[in-house]
Amino acid sequence: MMPSEMTHLVTGGAGFIAHTLIRRLLERGDSVLAIDNLSRGSLASLERFSSDPLFSFRQADCADYASLRNEVGDALGTMTLTNVWHLAANSDVPAGVEDPEIDLRDTFLTTFNVLKLMREFAVPNLHFASSSAIYGDLGDRVADEAAGPLEPISNYGAMKLASEAQIRASVESHIQRADIFRFPNVIGTPATHGVILDFVRKLKATPSRLDVLGNGTQRKPYLHVEELVDAMLYIQTVATGRYNVFNIGPKDIGVTVGFIAETVQSRMSNGANICYGAGDRGWVGDVPKFQYSTSRLQSLGWEPRMDSKTAVMRAVNEIIAEQA
Amino acid sequence: MMPSEMTHLVTGGAGFIAHTLIRRLLERGDSVLAIDNLSRGSLASLERFSSDPLFSFRQADCADYASLRNEVGDALGTMTLTNVWHLAANSDVPAGVEDPEIDLRDTFLTTFNVLKLMREFAVPNLHFASSSAIYGDLGDRVADEAAGPLEPISNYGAMKLASEAQIRASVESHIQRADIFRFPNVIGTPATHGVILDFVRKLKATPSRLDVLGNGTQRKPYLHVEELVDAMLYIQTVATGRYNVFNIGPKDIGVTVGFIAETVQSRMSNGANICYGAGDRGWVGDVPKFQYSTSRLQSLGWEPRMDSKTAVMRAVNEIIAEQA
Repeated sequence: MMPSEMTHLVTGGAGFIAHTLIRRLLERGDSVLAIDNLSRGSLASLERFSSDPLFSFRQADCADYASLRNEVGDALGTMTLTNVWHLAANSDVPAGVEDPEIDLRDTFLTTFNVLKLMREFAVPNLHFASSSAIYGDLGDRVADEAAGPLEPISNYGAMKLASEAQIRASVESHIQRADIFRFPNVIGTPATHGVILDFVRKLKATPSRLDVLGNGTQRKPYLHVEELVDAMLYIQTVATGRYNVFNIGPKDIGVTVGFIAETVQSRMSNGANICYGAGDRGWVGDVPKFQYSTSRLQSLGWEPRMDSKTAVMRAVNEIIAEQA
Repeated sequence: MMPSEMTHLVTGGAGFIAHTLIRRLLERGDSVLAIDNLSRGSLASLERFSSDPLFSFRQADCADYASLRNEVGDALGTMTLTNVWHLAANSDVPAGVEDPEIDLRDTFLTTFNVLKLMREFAVPNLHFASSSAIYGDLGDRVADEAAGPLEPISNYGAMKLASEAQIRASVESHIQRADIFRFPNVIGTPATHGVILDFVRKLKATPSRLDVLGNGTQRKPYLHVEELVDAMLYIQTVATGRYNVFNIGPKDIGVTVGFIAETVQSRMSNGANICYGAGDRGWVGDVPKFQYSTSRLQSLGWEPRMDSKTAVMRAVNEIIAEQA
């Protein structure tokens, strides 16, 4: 295989989504430098890449610019970065509601510093993991990428929107192109957080009972991480604008938390009682139902093969196997 | 006069808009604590209030939380804040494009810390000076408050949008109410920055020649500061929602930079040559034309008495007199 001309920096490189992204980039023959502060991600997930000469890893915290700059500069040597995939962020939304400093630091200042790094290293292309959380609680409205108003109800959503804004302004000054991926709930392995992992862990600890936050009626779309990464790479390859914003998600309206609880229960502990809480929100900043339009991405020529139900059933099996 | 039950914190208290706001709040019989880091504002503008027992001032930097907290806590003593008017921000948009740290610190982290202060001091009501810059370059579209997408093209606009997002999320958790005022170009005295002051200073320095950034065709709406503050106080008094977003501006489509240059020239130095630059943008992040809808504010029952032209002519006279 010819050496690729593309060299990618992946932030949050030891995290859930990075695992699949890095595998796909390496399969393409591209070079990958992964960085992570290892506060939430784990080096174990990167072991499979460690013998690949196209892969390298450095421990660095994107929220600490000096450390970020030094580690990246040192790792690159004479190589030139062509693309940054900025995935580093807080992934614990309720923790960020409790303490706003968490999303300030890990969800926004990481983005700010990545843009600063791109300016210093003259990196042209940014691919950013944004979130449906920027839309806030839309009620019955279906959000497309041009929807307004944007009223995030969690600090996580607020700092993802802040990141998008800073990226947009940077396209006007020093970066050549940015892709903004607005993620739905993404599931699969290696699982680091999320409702399925929570349920699996709870049932392992107490096989007779599964406690659910909220009344189980929250309905959200779920996408499997393999499909998410497929969509990201498709957009990177096919989109041609300087600022490309895409909702990524399944075409269906999603499944309820109750469905997920029942799926995990049926696989792990058929006799367990599922105990629902009150209200249709699991926590402050939780959105009870959510649907957004993915027609822009379909118009670009990509659509998922799995619906939310299929994705949940596959991810439940994968996570149970991983946690066994 | 009975002592008012309202005690207001005004950040950016030594700045342009705060001057008029503080005067109006004191005239209402409310108590005002003004804070400013005095990096751009001047204490001179606050001298007229210094003998008013309802007024106090502390030097503090909102971007430095420890200083902010200590000064405000010390100044309040046993008083309880009911309202915060957060006006502190970078006001030099091109400087913020050159160095993104400026808007990060002065336009966004000030907001973040003000929200943190409100949480610590249990302050219920926030009134925030946002900006039309959050909309970015709309081309021929007329922005109403629900417009999307929001694509700010300056770091200033990005950090105002980030501020709005963090405020919106805080309404979900710890503040009772927030008013978001999306300002147009605001003019009047005491002038600290802006196109009129620039032109007046240039003509004072070189009476024979007035250099204009850009070709003079940029057209924007202008509002006089007296009317802006009137609208802010009207919204504070009349709006009833928990999160109230209002564009504030004149009803007309605005005047060109060329008109402003000619107005200043005719008052100060009738024989001066006006020398236009190239292009329809004065700087990166400048928007060549801009119009937004103020019909939401009109529906609430407020509208301006001056159009952009009248406001510019009045402000030019006031600024020339002030700078004489």
